Amino acid sequence: MRILVLGGDGYLGWPTALHLSRHGHDVAVVDNFVRRQYDFEMGVDSLVPVAALQRRVRRWEEVSGLRIETFVGDLTDPVFVQQTLQRFAPESIVHFAEQRSAPYSMIDRQHAVYTQVNNVVGTLNVLYAIAEQDPSIHLVKLGTMGEYGTPNIDIEEGFLEVTHKGRTDVLPFPKQPGSFYHLSKVHDSHNIMFACRIWGLRATDLNQGIVYGQETDETSLHPELATRFDYDGVFGTVLNRFCVQAVIGHPLTVYGTGGQTRGMLDIRDTLACVELAITNPAATGEYRVFNQFTESFSVQQMADMVAEAFPARVRIDHLDPPRVEQQEHYYRAAHTKLLDLGLVPHLLEASTIRDLLAVVDHHRDRVDPEAIAPTVDWRATSSTLPTQGSPLVVG
Amino acid sequence: MRILVLGGDGYLGWPTALHLSRHGHDVAVVDNFVRRQYDFEMGVDSLVPVAALQRRVRRWEEVSGLRIETFVGDLTDPVFVQQTLQRFAPESIVHFAEQRSAPYSMIDRQHAVYTQVNNVVGTLNVLYAIAEQDPSIHLVKLGTMGEYGTPNIDIEEGFLEVTHKGRTDVLPFPKQPGSFYHLSKVHDSHNIMFACRIWGLRATDLNQGIVYGQETDETSLHPELATRFDYDGVFGTVLNRFCVQAVIGHPLTVYGTGGQTRGMLDIRDTLACVELAITNPAATGEYRVFNQFTESFSVQQMADMVAEAFPARVRIDHLDPPRVEQQEHYYRAAHTKLLDLGLVPHLLEASTIRDLLAVVDHHRDRVDPEAIAPTVDWRATSSTLPTQGSPLVVG
Repeated sequence: MRILVLGGDGYLGWPTALHLSRHGHDVAVVDNFVRRQYDFEMGVDSLVPVAALQRRVRRWEEVSGLRIETFVGDLTDPVFVQQTLQRFAPESIVHFAEQRSAPYSMIDRQHAVYTQVNNVVGTLNVLYAIAEQDPSIHLVKLGTMGEYGTPNIDIEEGFLEVTHKGRTDVLPFPKQPGSFYHLSKVHDSHNIMFACRIWGLRATDLNQGIVYGQETDETSLHPELATRFDYDGVFGTVLNRFCVQAVIGHPLTVYGTGGQTRGMLDIRDTLACVELAITNPAATGEYRVFNQFTESFSVQQMADMVAEAFPARVRIDHLDPPRVEQQEHYYRAAHTKLLDLGLVPHLLEASTIRDLLAVVDHHRDRVDPEAIAPTVDWRATSSTLPTQGSPLVVG
Repeated sequence: MRILVLGGDGYLGWPTALHLSRHGHDVAVVDNFVRRQYDFEMGVDSLVPVAALQRRVRRWEEVSGLRIETFVGDLTDPVFVQQTLQRFAPESIVHFAEQRSAPYSMIDRQHAVYTQVNNVVGTLNVLYAIAEQDPSIHLVKLGTMGEYGTPNIDIEEGFLEVTHKGRTDVLPFPKQPGSFYHLSKVHDSHNIMFACRIWGLRATDLNQGIVYGQETDETSLHPELATRFDYDGVFGTVLNRFCVQAVIGHPLTVYGTGGQTRGMLDIRDTLACVELAITNPAATGEYRVFNQFTESFSVQQMADMVAEAFPARVRIDHLDPPRVEQQEHYYRAAHTKLLDLGLVPHLLEASTIRDLLAVVDHHRDRVDPEAIAPTVDWRATSSTLPTQGSPLVVG
């Protein structure tokens, strides 16, 4: 199948492109490299070095004999989006190309506006380009479990059957997102659902949990095929950060009580889920939602697991929580649709954490301890982050 | 009270400003005149002539002895928003300043993106400016009943108590908006709710029905105080359009079966509702939603009422529906909160329609019959509207 991976230079986009390429698909990637620019803005870097996209693609061809075409440009540029779809003529589009950090979106007004405009306009341009060129193109869009927030009822996959005053309907699951980034994904979801309704597009919204891990079957074939590993306070995710802290002998920093519970998944399961969505596409006019995670853990549980897996003694510190979120809450979310399609999860085991710790240990000289602490405060309208200037705000 | 009316040059913003001014409030208006620009773009005009804002404000001072301050600028310009709030120091902000036409947002990609960026970024800038300057400023934001769509259950005011698998929570009412414009209001609602939660802002979201009518106690004091009357296929609303069609001897054009049922209200009730919201503000940190309409009618019912009120015989034609919407559906929506605060509605009676018909008859020479037909097709990604070029897209 011809598959276009938007955001194909990023943490998940790149390994997804490799995975699909190796599984016989004809893959092209689109990127504007803004993810690399965020690093410059923050003064941080991926723990694992990442080669330039052009270099990675050449290396992939050497290693695998397979070609990945590249399109460099910005989804907020509608002409670029149209031309890319015309030139590559994809049958499926996987859309990772959004600003994906909650703290980044909460730095200040400018970063909030940038995140929402970038994500919403990019996705609108993709929807229009699909509708205009070929409405049968299946859009596989990365959403987030964070769209739901933490309601006091079970979270379902996108929709909820509601009985109210004696009448029943199946309605979009109510959303209570917790950052301007998460809000941008909720806006996207509403826009995509509408586009499927009026234009007969077909889309799968993957409401993904927090991803951990760094190596996949394809990236491990050569160091220049590696994907990012983020541990900084803005783009780093929790399990990666704990592993870095353990390796450099820093206490693991749990925000608040650590009772915040989230759906999680292994990076390799992300690739499998995206492929399952592509090979089992939505029907014409269908907007469907899969909750893409395999297990739920509280932040405290994750800290405990890292502490247990690490050979030396590890201290766990509790910081004032920088986010406005419930620290103790009910959390039970459905995630059966991908299992029904055949997903066989990699569960989070001590060996998984030991593999991650080995990756970190290998690159421990590159750790910048200054980058780890949370710097963005949800309650402030402007955080004193040592940013260098403005993000690329696109009109 | 010091009240800043955003969009104070528009159909509802202007009479709201006058009403609040006459009721003893210290009022300033903000506008960028883009509403007048849409007319140029479409080649249409308000049936009732509208004076320039500066002229209207001078006339108001002559007639009433009351001053209304004006701020000319764009809400997507954050510096303008901050400076305006600093200079006027409002206690309440009424926010009408959004692109408010569903067909306009559905013209093509550019108009969809413009509508969402303009509305979402403008509102984000207002939220940040309030949070930074004075979180106690009460934001009264115009939303729309169209955010809910037409679910098969009763519509409540913003929130819904849901019992699911034995657990109960009160959640945001699920939204199924029917245009990129209506979607922009849903995006706003989510953003505002979040800002109240993290920064302790207080906001009232007025989910307004379709407004009819043109004269208010204040605008009727002088012809130069008149507000707009739109009947064109893009910005005109249904009852106004039927009155114009009746007066010029054109059949009333009902889209589809006419079973589409919507909440409606008299323009004078809009003013009363906004004032009730202001004088009974939301609590600190509270995001509340009032459904702002007084009666529900189907499109066919409205056509029948106009036909009955008009002295001559009126034909009713059924057009192919340009929108993607249910033509026959359940519709029952709560609207008690404003009544509880003391709203005494002006109901839609034959005399109301006769007053509207008299306004139209007075200006019948200005009717452009070419402007009335629907020109925007929801199913097309680009409608052949005789537009002159691009809207003001602001980054």
